[in-house]
Amino acid sequence: MIHSFLLVGQSNMAGRGFIKEVPITCNERIRVLRNGRWQIMMEPIHYDRPYAGVGPAASFAVAWCNKNENKEIGLIPCADGGTSLDDWSVEGPLFKHAVLQARLAKQSSKLDGILWHQGESDSVSKKYKDYNQKFSKIVNAFRKELDEPDIPIIIGGMGDYLANGFLGEYFQQYIEINGELLRFSENNNNCYFVTALGLTPNPDGIHINAVSQRIFGLRYFEAYDKHQHILEPVEGEEDAINIDIERTPTKTERMAILENKFAGGNMSLEEYQFQLSEINS
Amino acid sequence: MIHSFLLVGQSNMAGRGFIKEVPITCNERIRVLRNGRWQIMMEPIHYDRPYAGVGPAASFAVAWCNKNENKEIGLIPCADGGTSLDDWSVEGPLFKHAVLQARLAKQSSKLDGILWHQGESDSVSKKYKDYNQKFSKIVNAFRKELDEPDIPIIIGGMGDYLANGFLGEYFQQYIEINGELLRFSENNNNCYFVTALGLTPNPDGIHINAVSQRIFGLRYFEAYDKHQHILEPVEGEEDAINIDIERTPTKTERMAILENKFAGGNMSLEEYQFQLSEINS
Repeated sequence: MIHSFLLVGQSNMAGRGFIKEVPITCNERIRVLRNGRWQIMMEPIHYDRPYAGVGPAASFAVAWCNKNENKEIGLIPCADGGTSLDDWSVEGPLFKHAVLQARLAKQSSKLDGILWHQGESDSVSKKYKDYNQKFSKIVNAFRKELDEPDIPIIIGGMGDYLANGFLGEYFQQYIEINGELLRFSENNNNCYFVTALGLTPNPDGIHINAVSQRIFGLRYFEAYDKHQHILEPVEGEEDAINIDIERTPTKTERMAILENKFAGGNMSLEEYQFQLSEINS
Repeated sequence: MIHSFLLVGQSNMAGRGFIKEVPITCNERIRVLRNGRWQIMMEPIHYDRPYAGVGPAASFAVAWCNKNENKEIGLIPCADGGTSLDDWSVEGPLFKHAVLQARLAKQSSKLDGILWHQGESDSVSKKYKDYNQKFSKIVNAFRKELDEPDIPIIIGGMGDYLANGFLGEYFQQYIEINGELLRFSENNNNCYFVTALGLTPNPDGIHINAVSQRIFGLRYFEAYDKHQHILEPVEGEEDAINIDIERTPTKTERMAILENKFAGGNMSLEEYQFQLSEINS
């Protein structure tokens, strides 16, 4: 039975880290829900926008696999870039879509957690004042609609860099949002806060870069695994970029990576057939 | 109100044409359902696999826009590579997922049609003998579950090249499948068959290439628009690759293309800001 996790929030959960900046992660024990079925994960996991990239879920899943030998994890990508907390209201399409996907996933998996990252779009105009009240409704509705009253919810904080980018004026109140996210996590059962302390952005100054997303995913896993808030960097996280590169890829993984190159138009038929025979020999 | 179309079937509906082989198509009147909301279309439309590419839906949508001035079209991508007709049985996750997506789309659009392309995975072991019976159940169930008893269903044929590729042995009975698809279309209300005559594949010999997919999309539109089977190439289709390149892009489209480059890590912040100011000036 696959152990599944619902991914919700805005762009930094969907992932905007540049894929070319980190080694490929392909592990046959990590699946992604596509059209209601579980496919081998390749990044990007989300496709909310054509430029989706590396988010925290891939390294979260690798860390999960390292802890849970021989078990499978499934990711349910439902985060959507640029979305405010109001966009996630329980009457809106984002919430409805996420519930439909998670329910579909539950027909072939055990839903073990929800990973949330949202708040950039609410870091302005004193929106933090209503954050707890609105977020509480959303969390309660997810737990009710998914019939998972105690499911762990891991809640990431905003990056410290947010006020400094070329659009920094729109994110001046990220510190207040972080305060609200931590307060919510402290006051609600099985909710854990994860700091974004020290993470760095893409040139846009908004989106967590690929290397930092690998680190962030490890922190998310630490919070999930230890059932505690993560308020400081975790031990060994500086090597997060290499989390899955020492493992020898399985035959299935080698086939998946080869297929990706060939079917994507980046390899000749002759080279594909040669490499296929190498894998099969 | 957006006019929406459900895209279902296997890889040649999902799209495997290489995006680099055709000019970019970006039209602000063409939307794609992502997380329950309508986003500006960029190819790939599907993300069933990491190597998804050009399918028939983009040029179908451009042709639709050319015919329906000032109206908007929305695409609902639910096709999935390698899937057999049995995988699409009404009890399975693909069918359920497609119905959920189409119902969600109907909350903010008028569902105007279903585009189907499937059969490669049933072109072996005399599976064609059961095709009509199985497909009939699926079509009837879509119409019933979506509460659209008469919705047009456009049904594309298999490519003539299928038996000749390096995996051709698995597709020997594509002619029989084409016969069944045509027979089904002739015998069912508002179902129209579209020939794949003359379309050419990627080097894999399985997937319709990008230029041919542009042509295929025009044929799909011709069938939809004229309410008739398309058994021959349509007039002017040889220029399908240029279908949308003479139109001057709107400001919204220029912004979308620019954002895609920058957010995808393919442009510096300085260049992005310069081009942004050019668009806004």
